[in-house]
This record gives sequence, C-alpha cells and structure tokens, in this order.
Amino acid sequence: MKVVIAGAGFGGLRLARQLNNKAGFEVTLVDRFNYHQFQPLFYQVATAGLDASNISFPLRKVFQRSKNVRIRLAEIRQIQPEQQQLLTDNEVIPYDVLVLAMGAGTNFFGNAQLEEHTFPMKSTVEALQLRYRILQNLENALTVSDPAELQRLMNIVVVGGGPTGVELAGALAEMKQYVLPKEYPELDFSRMHIWLLEGSGKTLSTMSEQSSARSLKYLEKLGVKVKTNTLVKDYDGKTVLLAEGQEPIPSATVIWAAGIKGNVPEGIDKNMIARGNRIKTDRYCRVIGQSNVYVIGDLACMETPDYPQGHPMVAPVAMQMADLVAGNLKLLERKSKKGNQYEFVYRDKGSMATVGRNLAVVDIPKPKMRLGGFIAWMIWMGLHLMLILGVKNRFFVFCNWLYNYVTYDQNLRLIFREFDKPKK
Amino acid sequence: MKVVIAGAGFGGLRLARQLNNKAGFEVTLVDRFNYHQFQPLFYQVATAGLDASNISFPLRKVFQRSKNVRIRLAEIRQIQPEQQQLLTDNEVIPYDVLVLAMGAGTNFFGNAQLEEHTFPMKSTVEALQLRYRILQNLENALTVSDPAELQRLMNIVVVGGGPTGVELAGALAEMKQYVLPKEYPELDFSRMHIWLLEGSGKTLSTMSEQSSARSLKYLEKLGVKVKTNTLVKDYDGKTVLLAEGQEPIPSATVIWAAGIKGNVPEGIDKNMIARGNRIKTDRYCRVIGQSNVYVIGDLACMETPDYPQGHPMVAPVAMQMADLVAGNLKLLERKSKKGNQYEFVYRDKGSMATVGRNLAVVDIPKPKMRLGGFIAWMIWMGLHLMLILGVKNRFFVFCNWLYNYVTYDQNLRLIFREFDKPKK
Repeated sequence: MKVVIAGAGFGGLRLARQLNNKAGFEVTLVDRFNYHQFQPLFYQVATAGLDASNISFPLRKVFQRSKNVRIRLAEIRQIQPEQQQLLTDNEVIPYDVLVLAMGAGTNFFGNAQLEEHTFPMKSTVEALQLRYRILQNLENALTVSDPAELQRLMNIVVVGGGPTGVELAGALAEMKQYVLPKEYPELDFSRMHIWLLEGSGKTLSTMSEQSSARSLKYLEKLGVKVKTNTLVKDYDGKTVLLAEGQEPIPSATVIWAAGIKGNVPEGIDKNMIARGNRIKTDRYCRVIGQSNVYVIGDLACMETPDYPQGHPMVAPVAMQMADLVAGNLKLLERKSKKGNQYEFVYRDKGSMATVGRNLAVVDIPKPKMRLGGFIAWMIWMGLHLMLILGVKNRFFVFCNWLYNYVTYDQNLRLIFREFDKPKK
Repeated sequence: MKVVIAGAGFGGLRLARQLNNKAGFEVTLVDRFNYHQFQPLFYQVATAGLDASNISFPLRKVFQRSKNVRIRLAEIRQIQPEQQQLLTDNEVIPYDVLVLAMGAGTNFFGNAQLEEHTFPMKSTVEALQLRYRILQNLENALTVSDPAELQRLMNIVVVGGGPTGVELAGALAEMKQYVLPKEYPELDFSRMHIWLLEGSGKTLSTMSEQSSARSLKYLEKLGVKVKTNTLVKDYDGKTVLLAEGQEPIPSATVIWAAGIKGNVPEGIDKNMIARGNRIKTDRYCRVIGQSNVYVIGDLACMETPDYPQGHPMVAPVAMQMADLVAGNLKLLERKSKKGNQYEFVYRDKGSMATVGRNLAVVDIPKPKMRLGGFIAWMIWMGLHLMLILGVKNRFFVFCNWLYNYVTYDQNLRLIFREFDKPKK
C-alpha cells in the first residue's frame, strides 16, 4: 500500500513512525522543511533561550535505517484525487492512501498590511527572524535621536492571548527584566513596554477559569501590559491601531499570534472546508466523501457530539489521530477484518502553559486538577523535555534551561541574518 | 583617551578586553555582527558538526559589566583621519586613537563569475549558507532524471589547499563516508566526488614538508580527489574550468578558499596598501605616516627582517598585536614614559590543521616537532576548545564533538533558510 503523508509535524511524523518498517507499506513523507519542528518551544527560540537546532530534528535521521519510508523536501501544491496523486513543486507522487497532515498557518484574516508588517511565529525560521528583529531594533535604538522613534523601537506588541502569545510575552518580559539592562546600559528600559492584546475577555481562554486568572496575575507580575477585549484594527509597520477611542500603540515589533487557519492544498472540494479553513472528516479521519484521503491534526475538522466545532488544534489530538489512522491502515492492509475500522475518540489529558520562571499553569481533567506556580512549571518542563525528539536535543535543551535558570541569562542573542543575497 | 576599535575578531576583541575597565580609556567596539566569530571552526558549521551558536559569542555578553566599552553593530564605511572620526552606516564616531582590526575577506581576484557562483567561507553566515546548499543539492538530486545533472549535484569542489580547504574537504569526505549513504539510500554515493584543487605543488604549503605530505596522505585516505598545480580559470555555476588540457569538472557546489584580501576601509592612502590589500604599518602597528591609526591582525602588513612580506594571516599574530597595542596605549595614557613604545616581535608557537577523525598535523617550532595522526588530533581539539570564548560554548562544542566521535554522525543537518522575504 503506497501511503503518502503530507506534513511531518506531530501528526504526520507520528504516523510515519508507526508505519516505519511495517510490511505491506511504502511510505513517502513530504515536508517543506527537512526537519520536524517542536512548535511548543518556538517562543524560546525567538527570545534567544534555545537554539533553533535544539527543537528541530532532521527527518532523515529519524528514518536512517528505514526500509520503507522515503523523505521528500518539497512544497505541496495540489492533490488530484481522481488520478490518486499528489503534486509538489518538483514531483508527482502517486498514492493509494493520502494523509494530509499539513497543520495550520497564521491567519491574518485577509488584512494584507498585518501580513506584511507583523511577525508570525508558526515555524522555526519565523521564530529566528523574530529574534533577529528584536535584537536589531535595540541596536538601532542606540543611534536614533528622535524620542518618538526610540519609543517605537522599544515597544513590543504581542497580539493574541492564547498559549503562544502568553508564553512569548512572559519570556520577553523576563528578557527585559534580567538581561537587556545589563547589555544595553545606554538605553532606559523603564521605557520599554511589552503589550499583550487579546480580543476576548481573558488570557488562555481555552483553559480553566482558575488557570486563566492565574496567567493574567503572572503576566502582570512580570510587568506585561495586558489589554483584554482589545481588537487590533490595523498596523502599518509603525503604529498599532485599536478600536475607536483606544490609544494607538507605536511599535516597531508586532507579533501576530491571534489566529491560525488550516493549510488546505488545492484540489479539496470547497464544500469540505469548515470554519478556520479546516477540512471536514468523518470519524475515521477520512475526508467526507473520499475513501482514501485522510486528514489528521490541526487541519482536520471532525465534528463529534463532544466537539461539535472540531477538536482543539493541539499536538495530542494530532498524535492520537495518527495512532488511529495507523491502526486502521494496518487493519486494511491485513484485510483480515475488512471494514472493521475504529472511530476516533479523543482522550484529553489536559493542557498547560508557562509564563515565566517558576510560573506556569496546568489543567488536568481526570483527576480534575488545576495547578499553578513552581509545581506546574516543573511539570511543564518535564513533559516538554520528554516530548522533544532525540536524546541529544533533550540533553541540549536541558542544559540550556539549566544555564538560563542559574544565570538568568538566555545568551543566544545572535543575529545570523542572510545579509547577502543567497546563492542560487 | 577615546579608542575606537573597528572589528571584533581575534585582534579587535582581544584589544577591547585588554582595555576593559581600564581607567583613562573610553572604548567603542564596532563590528558588522553582534558576536565574535571563531573562524577556525567555520568548516564544522558548514558540514553540520557544530551549531553556528557554538562558535559565536555575543559581544554584549563579553562586556556585560563593562564601565568603558560600548558596542556598535554597524558596517564600517570610511575613516577620516583629519577629522579623527570613523563613519559607519548609521553614525559618525570620533576617536583619539583608531585601531583597524577588520581582518580579511575572500579574494576572487576580480573574477565576477567566481564571486557570483562560488561559496566563500569567511563568516558564520556564509558557512551556514554553504551547509544549506550542500543539503539542498542532495534533496534536489533525488528528483532529477538527467544523469549529467545528477553528477553535477553530487560533485563538490573545494578550491584552495590551505587549512580551510583541507579541513573542509576532509570533513565533507567523512560526511560522504559515514552519514550520507544512510540518509539518502536512493542515491549512489560512489558517484559523489569531493575535489580539492590547489594552485601550488602541495597542500598546506605554509606548513613543514612533513606535515604537508601527511595532509595529502590523509586526504587521499579519506577519498578526497586532490589535484595540485591546478588553477581554476572560471566557473559559471555549472562547470569548473581548469587550465588548457585539463578536464573540466561539473559541479553545483564550489567552495572558494583560494585567496583572501584585507578589508581596507575608504580613507586609507592608496600608497599604504601592500600586496593582498593589506595596510603597511610600522613596528608599532601604526599606519605608516599616522600617529594615531593602528592596524592589527590580517589587515596589517608589517614588514620585518623575519617577515619581509608581512606576518602570516593567523589568529596568534592578531592576538599578539592586540597585546602589544594595548600595552603601548597604556604607556601613552600614563604618559610616565612618553615615547617609550615597544616594537612588535612575533612569537610563532606553531601551526596545525585537522583532516579528519584521528587525523591532524601539528608543527611546533621550539622545540622543533612535527606531529601527526591521533596525538596531533588531540592537541588540535584541546587547543581549539581552550580558545573558544565562553564556558557554555566550550561545553557544547565538546558535547557535539563527543557525540560525533561516538556516533560517526554530525547530525545538525538542518536547512533554516529564510524562504520568505525578511520583514523590514
């Protein structure tokens, strides 16, 4: 059975590993990067606490001894269900079964100005670009004479109070507090403001009331200026415009973590697209109306009684869907119990977010627990260390965290910009 | 005394550290990067054995507690000796004493085609770009059907048999031998060729006869195709043209390590430029005819009886010149023994290069020793570990080396390309 997996995130990679060296399967794993990205720690790459390599695992390394998994580094262009083939930017790949696991990208809600001027953080490369920009702005601040321009260079605005926005704003506030004043003695960091803007009434709104309230308390403790019920209307690269009557915020660095949308390839029936640009699936993760095209992870919108709007767009859903599809494909391949396919049931093991050192929140549904502070932070770190792929990465992340914890100093403040035109 | 140091390489950084927190000095250190680069290990960044951050040290971190050293991230544009000021791309910096320590860049000898198509390796960013290109070419090789194009993608040509070329060719040969066949089972690596082209009659020609001969033996043992007495005439991005009668070499990756030239800023008297675009200095490292403009390191051409063409362009010369200038400036500042300035005398402690695992060569002048093999390799590693700035970097380099030694696997094969246009 020729299985083509589009995307090597939590879902796609997991599925490829489940089918690795399994008789009867020929797997092709396609991704636009040559590594798996550990998305939950992008914000630490952006704030110079971790190296990009620490949270990236080369795909070819994972499948170094594989007999049946091929890797393709390519952009996915289109699916052609009738011909049973996937088009990439340099190849046509035929399949018996296609699994779309391309996740979600940043949603600018059609605002071209926001797309042009704000920083998304949905890939390692984007996290690096953000790091370079934050550092470069401080360097530029040393030589400007206009006070308004100086303020603009020192303000950072994070839009979106979900886990990404909260974690990033917290990490920036700690940089401001512990590191930057020592490194830029010529700048007055009491003038630096970290804003966190959230459209709804609270931060971490998908978590429990208690954790949501705690996250707000932690952010304010770290000096983040949190504004809830605040929608960004526009941003021209200089000033963030809010709703009528609200003061605009001058800023040279705006991070857009306020929305994501599914990365739908061409060739999917428009009627199958649900809210958030996700693809409607049946309970077996198959695109409705297609027997051999599956969707897993953020891109899948499976409406169930428990999740009428689809499941949360988080790693555990993607990984559990990968396990389900792997199991069902193995049943199909064996043909022993043809038609006996299992339905997806999500087992929610909880959610968590970290705001700063010793400050995190954890919600566990069974047994119902709401944890905060140091103990939640330890759980957060332990779990993330466990989930990172590769012993070496785990070790290096641990060393970096230990170093940062002891020295209060994320010291990867390096601008590796491609100043020159890259070679063809 | 206002001392402006242009360049934070081995010379410039050393001088700034010598003057750090010394009464009477106000130091401004200017560099185009916000970190010190450990040049001797660029080739390991290019071949995915080390992370770029492992050999980079943020300048602001070095001077975090400094009372008198300011850092400026800027491109140096021009010196104006009469006004005693240095022009950068965003500032005018006045000086009492200027020290030029901008080192050397790649010399393409005026050949625009070579400059456009070959890869230099004189900065961390360039080493990263080379890494990305080598990996991307192998990915592309998977989908080409034309055998000539496939061969072109698999051939790598290193031009220049000095330490950089030898070390890079050796590391590439080890990648080909130990790593790549496991990762690209679809490619036939017996068809991959690593060429090392050298214009003179031998590799490592500045070292002893014995070390030079050993390096050739080691390279051939690793399967590098070494061609001495071979000059590159041209390269159009597809085929390396050699002298009449010599077979051209098709290759998509050509690394240019065949020449360097001093990074001379505008404003230097043309008569003061020596061979290799270096600036002529007196025995005190002062530009001839200027009492308050110094040049140290690769950029300095100090003609002495022992070194009639100037000193070798290596780190120890730069560091010793920095020490000399620091001492002389302190004497000037104290004014106690005005005019009592020391002349530069280079103490050559030897030279070394590594070709591969357990394969290195070391020349020590006093007591005269020529070492090779495992013992030389251990010395090479120990010394480089010592010289790297920062305990954390040293630790991470050590871990990476240990990992690579045990697993035969440099596993930082990650393409962090800025695919998208960087934000303004």
